[in-house]
Amino acid sequence: MEEMLQKILDQNRYWIKYGEVPSYIPALAKANPEDLGVSVVNMKGQIVTIGDCSTKFTMQSISKPLALMQAIMDSGPVEVFRKVGMEPTGDPFNSIIKLETLKPSKPLNPMINAGAITTSSLINGSNSTERIERLLELVRTLAGNNEIGINEEIYHSEKETADRNRALGYFMRDIGVLEGNVEDILDTYFRQCAIEVSCSDIANIAVGLANKGNTLDGQEVVPADIVRISNTFMVTCGMYNASGEFAIKAGLPAKSGVSGGIMALAPQKIGIGVYSPALDQRGNSIAGIHILEDLSAWLDLSIF
Amino acid sequence: MEEMLQKILDQNRYWIKYGEVPSYIPALAKANPEDLGVSVVNMKGQIVTIGDCSTKFTMQSISKPLALMQAIMDSGPVEVFRKVGMEPTGDPFNSIIKLETLKPSKPLNPMINAGAITTSSLINGSNSTERIERLLELVRTLAGNNEIGINEEIYHSEKETADRNRALGYFMRDIGVLEGNVEDILDTYFRQCAIEVSCSDIANIAVGLANKGNTLDGQEVVPADIVRISNTFMVTCGMYNASGEFAIKAGLPAKSGVSGGIMALAPQKIGIGVYSPALDQRGNSIAGIHILEDLSAWLDLSIF
Amino acid sequence: MEEMLQKILDQNRYWIKYGEVPSYIPALAKANPEDLGVSVVNMKGQIVTIGDCSTKFTMQSISKPLALMQAIMDSGPVEVFRKVGMEPTGDPFNSIIKLETLKPSKPLNPMINAGAITTSSLINGSNSTERIERLLELVRTLAGNNEIGINEEIYHSEKETADRNRALGYFMRDIGVLEGNVEDILDTYFRQCAIEVSCSDIANIAVGLANKGNTLDGQEVVPADIVRISNTFMVTCGMYNASGEFAIKAGLPAKSGVSGGIMALAPQKIGIGVYSPALDQRGNSIAGIHILEDLSAWLDLSIF
Amino acid sequence: MEEMLQKILDQNRYWIKYGEVPSYIPALAKANPEDLGVSVVNMKGQIVTIGDCSTKFTMQSISKPLALMQAIMDSGPVEVFRKVGMEPTGDPFNSIIKLETLKPSKPLNPMINAGAITTSSLINGSNSTERIERLLELVRTLAGNNEIGINEEIYHSEKETADRNRALGYFMRDIGVLEGNVEDILDTYFRQCAIEVSCSDIANIAVGLANKGNTLDGQEVVPADIVRISNTFMVTCGMYNASGEFAIKAGLPAKSGVSGGIMALAPQKIGIGVYSPALDQRGNSIAGIHILEDLSAWLDLSIF
Repeated sequence: MEEMLQKILDQNRYWIKYGEVPSYIPALAKANPEDLGVSVVNMKGQIVTIGDCSTKFTMQSISKPLALMQAIMDSGPVEVFRKVGMEPTGDPFNSIIKLETLKPSKPLNPMINAGAITTSSLINGSNSTERIERLLELVRTLAGNNEIGINEEIYHSEKETADRNRALGYFMRDIGVLEGNVEDILDTYFRQCAIEVSCSDIANIAVGLANKGNTLDGQEVVPADIVRISNTFMVTCGMYNASGEFAIKAGLPAKSGVSGGIMALAPQKIGIGVYSPALDQRGNSIAGIHILEDLSAWLDLSIF
Repeated sequence: MEEMLQKILDQNRYWIKYGEVPSYIPALAKANPEDLGVSVVNMKGQIVTIGDCSTKFTMQSISKPLALMQAIMDSGPVEVFRKVGMEPTGDPFNSIIKLETLKPSKPLNPMINAGAITTSSLINGSNSTERIERLLELVRTLAGNNEIGINEEIYHSEKETADRNRALGYFMRDIGVLEGNVEDILDTYFRQCAIEVSCSDIANIAVGLANKGNTLDGQEVVPADIVRISNTFMVTCGMYNASGEFAIKAGLPAKSGVSGGIMALAPQKIGIGVYSPALDQRGNSIAGIHILEDLSAWLDLSIF
Repeated sequence: MEEMLQKILDQNRYWIKYGEVPSYIPALAKANPEDLGVSVVNMKGQIVTIGDCSTKFTMQSISKPLALMQAIMDSGPVEVFRKVGMEPTGDPFNSIIKLETLKPSKPLNPMINAGAITTSSLINGSNSTERIERLLELVRTLAGNNEIGINEEIYHSEKETADRNRALGYFMRDIGVLEGNVEDILDTYFRQCAIEVSCSDIANIAVGLANKGNTLDGQEVVPADIVRISNTFMVTCGMYNASGEFAIKAGLPAKSGVSGGIMALAPQKIGIGVYSPALDQRGNSIAGIHILEDLSAWLDLSIF
Repeated sequence: MEEMLQKILDQNRYWIKYGEVPSYIPALAKANPEDLGVSVVNMKGQIVTIGDCSTKFTMQSISKPLALMQAIMDSGPVEVFRKVGMEPTGDPFNSIIKLETLKPSKPLNPMINAGAITTSSLINGSNSTERIERLLELVRTLAGNNEIGINEEIYHSEKETADRNRALGYFMRDIGVLEGNVEDILDTYFRQCAIEVSCSDIANIAVGLANKGNTLDGQEVVPADIVRISNTFMVTCGMYNASGEFAIKAGLPAKSGVSGGIMALAPQKIGIGVYSPALDQRGNSIAGIHILEDLSAWLDLSIF
């Protein structure tokens, strides 16, 4: 395993030069484009790590499936899907158009920004701090790492440059999808994006999802049917508007973030964390995607 | 004149029952749908008023051409049209779609909300209070009425329910059209919408525009070429997405507001103010539009 | 199995009254809304049929994954995906908008009409007749039924009322996605939609796909990697703009048609054909969808 | 006049190099980008011609207001505006999006392609030949030139490359805006685009419109109220999605064509024809627009 994984990683380092570290959030722009790491955990808890697996990065959109699961646990699927749809979209993750053109309107799914902001608002808590604590607890438990916290610098950088998300937030309050204090709701979202993890944390979380929401020693963290919902969204909408292509080429539930991380899993088999901050045009880690495709082909992991 | 105007008003009172007072801004919803008034001022300053011409109402979108003229006087046409376009649009006045689909993007024109928020930001002043003072000064001078002020209740009501405009504001800062404090910029816009006038005030302002920006005793308030720009926008975009139809049927520069007022003018001939708060589906005073069409036909006022 | 299937069918007959037989293609409107049938075939070739399983209906969009597989076998994946995308869309199946807004443009995926018309054009053959013969051959082989043919009345009815598809066709030739005679290309599409089958034919085709493209006696009809592509599209885009919801609720590769049929499969397990012509608002068989959800839950078939 | 006109023309020849002769219709691509001519006719019928005023070119979109007037004369305004709207649009002239997004749908105005195809279908006649004869008669009478005919080469070139217009046509039959044979309706449109004129013909037609639809010797060709409708559309929508800017800068009813001609008029004053085939990005003659702006400024022609 280790040897093959090293080979896959070496072969795909090549892609880094075709990607770019995003500059729109100043604190993200400091990432080293050469960083590259992959962690794989099997159902026995055995972990293989290759490359920069202890480098810390922020979850960004990888937090979306986790916030979704917490929101369903807290508010129930009926309430969550009354406010957020279940359909993939051909539009970019930060698009506002469909909120205006669809009548009645709600965000198409919980993996685009509008939908993710809404699901964050459905986590129990009377304010941002309470909601983010619940989510952090979930992340820490699944990762088996109580040290996981929020990168304050990136959280603040994010908050200051988040006008597009603010536009989504106020638009959604206007159409009745969001209620309450928009800035406070957005604050939860900005903080969840800034949760700081390593590749290995991600792989540990992923293997919990591969294990139907249970830790490997059998403790239920998230009910299996809620994990299944989350896994489905990761397949249909997890890689922004390249999700369809990734489903065909790799066939794995996966969620990427603009920090360059990707969380992926093969149900009942393995959990995977990849980190490589150079992104392609759709906002996915360019080397990361190719590594996952090769890994899926090599181990025949596609669910299709 | 008086007799004919009374007849036109009586004939069109009929339309009121097909319109509706808007309910989305609570304070606006209190208007009496039966109110109906029209004021006409000729170039000699003679005024004819029929019906409820002293009832106060807020300018709402009628403030847009005035804010545009003040912005051009303060920032110059080059800067204003670098940030706001000149083209009519088939989209509703509060639409956000084109801001996302056009690349590079800016609001299509200064008569839709996005464009109006932007022009307000280009009035000189280091904050909302300074900007609104300049605009109020312009309105008072043109109307010849120093008592004109802001309806604080409606301003606050507007501010609290303005999530769509907030979405436009933050989206525009995201794409670089707006700079600075969005809430402060929006504040100018909310206050200009809440400037309180009567039909007769509107007619007096309109006759100043009909007189190329000069008061009737010859004092230049706005340069003639800036008035011409504003009049042109009033024709191509003044009546929301019913502007084209109004140009064909009435052929007058006109600007409506959701409070039920319409300011219209026939260049070098007359200024007109109409007030009737029951609106049609596009947001124009339903009786007001028909009164202006009849008045234009009767006096052969169309500029086409 | 038979008993449980009968029970599921009986329970879901209830939904029929909430659906409607579509009227836009006159010949389709003649279907009996009360018809309801389901066939299930396991990997040993054992078939269970309940209800109206010998009633003939036209494949309509169920033909799309079959045409896609034939096109990939004939033109290769590179050429096919140069002209058709891989991404799900939140837009309706007959939408033309994205063809204009995306630059460079191509249909988002092969399961919407624009994409399906394009894939049909990539089946080998110098004209519609040659292309449709190849596709019929594939359908007959997978279904093990050489009698399968085209319903000429529905084909002609379809052709006469297909202005929206014609618009898609000419638009795509304008942007360079289609080449050659548009009417001839459309003719292939109209004929493939009019291929006439029964529930049991559909179930037999589906079990071939569940068996990685091989007949149950081991003959390869479609290479396994091409079947996997098709299955993936059936999950991400197979149920029009309700695909995401169906993935969450049933978790099966499935493709519906406006005639009321649905083809579904559980890889390595079973093939399913359902027929019930009353449709929901997105164009899917309303009872059919609920039957598949119950069947998936009962047999724990979800791939997620 | 002659001297000033020569000067304006000389000054603006400069712009030609920033424009481009369009290549999408092969026969149009043969035009000489250096050609430049302007004709002005006053209400006494006195004509001034400068530059290439006898060069023939095809009317293209300049035919749209003429077809509109003929359609209103033949079918009445109620029927015409039941099928075509009155509103300007920020979308390009060949856009199909709004036909799908607006419900109920019809082309936004008669100056975009969708609307023009529809108005052509409302000219009396049982087929394309009869309809085009009526339109040619109108053009010849207004121009006072019985030799005006159709450029068959361009008509055929146009017809062969008109897939976008075909898409518009079939889409509109699908939504019930067009009835009957789409190819025959489009044929009228392709032929009207290929009507061949010179600058001077255009100026003569324009002065008839400036004279409220009467020839200069007083014969009524088009009723005055129908001319007014056409003039209004020329202001609000005549210059594609640069109409708003042209209204502000020149303030004249004007209609451009992709062959490089522009027809403009100052009501009760003059008719103008300009020809210069190098176009700007919106499809308007780049030197032509600047000549009209200078001419309007010099003679103070703006209607605003």
